[in-house]
Order: sequence, then C-alpha cells, then structure tokens
Amino acid sequence: MIRITPDQTTLGFIGTGVMGQSMAGHLLKAGYRVNVFSRTRSKTDALCEQGAVWMESVAQLAKASNVIITIVGFPSDVEEVYGGSGGIIENAEPSSIAIDMTTSDPALAQKLSKTGLKREIHVLDAPVSGGDIGAKNAALSIMVGGDKAAFDAVLPLFEIMGQNIVYQGGPGSGQHTKMANQIAIASGMVAVCEAISYAKHAGLDPETVLESIGKGAAGSWSLSNLGPRMIAGNYDPGFFVKHFIKDMNIALESSKGMGIKTPGLDLAKSLYDELVAKGCENDGTQALYKLYTE
Amino acid sequence: MIRITPDQTTLGFIGTGVMGQSMAGHLLKAGYRVNVFSRTRSKTDALCEQGAVWMESVAQLAKASNVIITIVGFPSDVEEVYGGSGGIIENAEPSSIAIDMTTSDPALAQKLSKTGLKREIHVLDAPVSGGDIGAKNAALSIMVGGDKAAFDAVLPLFEIMGQNIVYQGGPGSGQHTKMANQIAIASGMVAVCEAISYAKHAGLDPETVLESIGKGAAGSWSLSNLGPRMIAGNYDPGFFVKHFIKDMNIALESSKGMGIKTPGLDLAKSLYDELVAKGCENDGTQALYKLYTE
Repeated sequence: MIRITPDQTTLGFIGTGVMGQSMAGHLLKAGYRVNVFSRTRSKTDALCEQGAVWMESVAQLAKASNVIITIVGFPSDVEEVYGGSGGIIENAEPSSIAIDMTTSDPALAQKLSKTGLKREIHVLDAPVSGGDIGAKNAALSIMVGGDKAAFDAVLPLFEIMGQNIVYQGGPGSGQHTKMANQIAIASGMVAVCEAISYAKHAGLDPETVLESIGKGAAGSWSLSNLGPRMIAGNYDPGFFVKHFIKDMNIALESSKGMGIKTPGLDLAKSLYDELVAKGCENDGTQALYKLYTE
Repeated sequence: MIRITPDQTTLGFIGTGVMGQSMAGHLLKAGYRVNVFSRTRSKTDALCEQGAVWMESVAQLAKASNVIITIVGFPSDVEEVYGGSGGIIENAEPSSIAIDMTTSDPALAQKLSKTGLKREIHVLDAPVSGGDIGAKNAALSIMVGGDKAAFDAVLPLFEIMGQNIVYQGGPGSGQHTKMANQIAIASGMVAVCEAISYAKHAGLDPETVLESIGKGAAGSWSLSNLGPRMIAGNYDPGFFVKHFIKDMNIALESSKGMGIKTPGLDLAKSLYDELVAKGCENDGTQALYKLYTE
C-alpha cells in the first residue's frame, strides 16, 4: 500500500463546493500538493490562490494524483466522475487510492470498489456528517467503507479533515452508515417539529419547554440545535431540504433493496415532499416545522 | 402562602409505587413528617419503617397534611383521589397545596386547579421525567404548572426530589410540557429503531455505527441509551410500553382537542399498538425494535 506523506503524495480533489473547498483547504495547509478540477472552474479559484493546481479534466487529475478525493452532488455525478473512459478508474495509476466522500448510493460504492480493483485502484466510500461548519473546523465525522489497508493508508488525510473517523467495514459500509444516520435524523426531525408545535399550540413558551425536555429522554441534537431555530422562525439552510431529500431517496431505495420496512422514514419523506411542494427546497431542514404552523 | 419547613409542614404522599417510594423517602430523609396512604397498604411498609405515618384514607391524609403530593397511575386515578366527597379537594384544609406528579391529562389538571381554588386549595400539576433511576437519585426533571406563588412555596420540596425544576406557566402547563416530552420521544424511538434496523440489515456492526452517528446530528438520548439495549436484545423495562401508551393516548386526545396534526405521534402509537398486540406491554419502550427484527 502507498505511504501518504506531503513529500511523496500528490492529492487530487474533485468537488469544490462549500464543504469541498474547506476540506481541500485543510489538506493544502497541511503541506500537501493538491490538484483540483471542477465543472465550474471559478469554484477552484480560491484554492488555486492557496497553491492548488488546476487540472483540465478528471482524467488529467486522476493521472497526476496518487490519492483522489471526490465530494460531488448526486450518485449520478459520482458515476460520471468515476466511470467511463474519462473517469477516475480508467485513468488513475495502479495502486492509487480514490475516496468518494459524497453521500451516495451504497450499491454504487460497492460497484466502484469492484471495478477499481480490476485496475488495482482502491476505491473507498467515506461520506461525512457535520456540514459546512464541521468541514470548516476540520471536525467532520467520517464513516468509511472499503479495503482496511487502504483505509489505514489514507487515515492521515482523514485526520486532517475530521475528528470522528470510524472504519465501518467493506465497500459500501461508509454509505450504509451515513444512511442509518439520515434515517435517524428523518424521524427525529418529525419528533422535534411535533413537540414544539404541541407546546406552542398549548400556549406554552417553547423555549421554556426546551429547558425542561432538552436534556432528558426526549433530548436530541436536533431538538437542541434546530428546535430554537424553528421557534425563532429561522429557516436558513444549515443543511438544505433538497439535499436531505436526495439522501432520503437513497435510503428508501437501499431499504427497499434489502426488503426492510421503514414507516418512519416513509412518513418523513412524504412530509418533506409536502414541504418542497410549497417551494421550500432551498430552506434548511428545520423548515419542516412550517407544515405545523398552518 | 404557607411557608414550607420541616418544622412547620406535614406532608401527605399518595402513590407509593417504585418512583413514589423513592421520592417520599427523600422527603423523609430531609426531615419532613410524611403521612402516607395507598390502596395496597403493604406498598407503604418500607416508608413507615423510615418514619412515615400510615393514614386510613385519602380524606384522613388530606385533613392531616399541609402539602399533599400524589403520583398515581392513570388520569382516572387522579380524578378519584382528588374528586368526590372522600377526595383531596373536599378534605384538605384551606391554604393547603396539592401537587399532582402523575403524568396525566392537561385538561384534568386545569379542572382540578379550578375546583381546588373554590376551597382555597392550590393544585399544581408537576409531572416528572427521569424514571426510576431519576427518582432514586433525586435527579428528576420536574415540569410544573399552576399558581406561581404556590410553586415558589413548594420549590424546596421539588429540590429535594429533582434537579431540573422548571415552572412552565398556569394550570395544565406542567402536563402539557410532559406531553411535548412524550411526543418527542415517540417519533424519536421510531428513528432509533429504523436506524439500527437498517444498519443491521446492511450487515454493519450496529455498535460501530453508533460510534459514527451517536454524537452528531443524528444523536439523541434514546439512540445513546436505548440503542445499545436494542442491539443487545435487552427489553427489560426502564419505562414500560403500557405506561408509554397511556401517555401517548393523553397526548393524542389533547392534540385532537387543540385541532393540531401529529402524524409522527399517530405512527408511533400505531406501532406500539402492534407491539402490544404481540403481548409486549410489560417490556421497556425499546422493545419497539422487535417490530423491526422480523
């Protein structure tokens, strides 16, 4: 397995959205050479000013990098970046490691891992949680699936970007873990909305109610962090409704594939669909509360 | 308003189940005279050995006590203990304070408060959360509704039994707050079950998954405390399914009365009904996970 050090390793980074920019920035600051590519070149400008090197294509980036990190939008974007004649798997050098940090389909992660191995390229799935702020503060939770030796090799890179880094098992395990995370959030958001809605309709001061219920058996990250935003009518996006719906769709598809029932997830998804029908896809996920204020 | 001190105050305690026994025990240890009554006399034996005084009836207890604390089973029990010619309101001395710590119906709490005032008796609603262990360790969360001056007067007693004591507003506000608490728990339990079920069906090690998802945006008290019991197949009651169903029924009734929708609570209740149909009413609430293991 390759050894990862700033001297010996050139990184490639694809997907320079808000999170990707912070993550690639941390790698640059740690002394790594970082090649970047984006469909929208301007999104890499800030990184290039910090020393990142612009690549003309995914293929060029893959050829010029030992470890390739991707964090793009949808599973279809992952497929496009990894597959085909211009993709990472066809163009990376044997013994390269590719890490997909997009929240994506577990089955796709398994497929890419398998395809990669034919060219001696290890593909890890390593989605994150912690959002923009976690990315900015290098405090992401990173859940990783794939070859264990490849995980061990790139662990120093994960440690530059995150704090709670857990190897979850073979290919797809990182994505599956992220799906479990999103499933827990889905019904958890319903829980928070209904508790606050009840409190408000009962004529209570919901902030005082949070003092009573926030730390006990009803307590949750969502209640403590998003509850106050609901109460304040602040629907600014920490995590976009449209992205959460993408994740719930993957989780539903994956659950269906395993033949398991998810009545809570089904309900949450239908409520978020209602919210989107009202034009709220660019709100933060706490906007679900809007459905309870009518 | 009466002044509460061990010298000047005689307490009455009705409802000496597991929680009530611990709570009354703390009051005795703090130096208070405590009168006790129970439909089943043997349930007061341990307290009487610690110095509590047995009363032959609710009426006798009410007459002989300045502050009367109740923690019984169902709203119908509360009605029986407070109402009628043998009840607390008819028999307590004017200027007494009665505190119902049962999780009960907010509308009933409002009614008892009103009836009590006609005889100059303040009735507070002060349900708790924290369970057997919270009661034992004097660490209960106590959410209180009713007259503010009466609350201030009995605060020293609450501080002997609990830690997070919050005045929530007028009569019924304590019960409403507890309902918000139970509503948050209801969908929260669905969230935890489905996340762990997904992880297990995906072939992951659910305990390792908890390491990734337990502390971030998916984190909750239930996930951290009941998740591991689900994984271990430990369905011993911390909080009984049958008691949770009682609470959900009150919350549903109350929500209906206010005309608000609670799709998450509706779903949770229907799942717990399924669980009871399987004969699991004496399990702990984490037994909901059984529905996901079939």
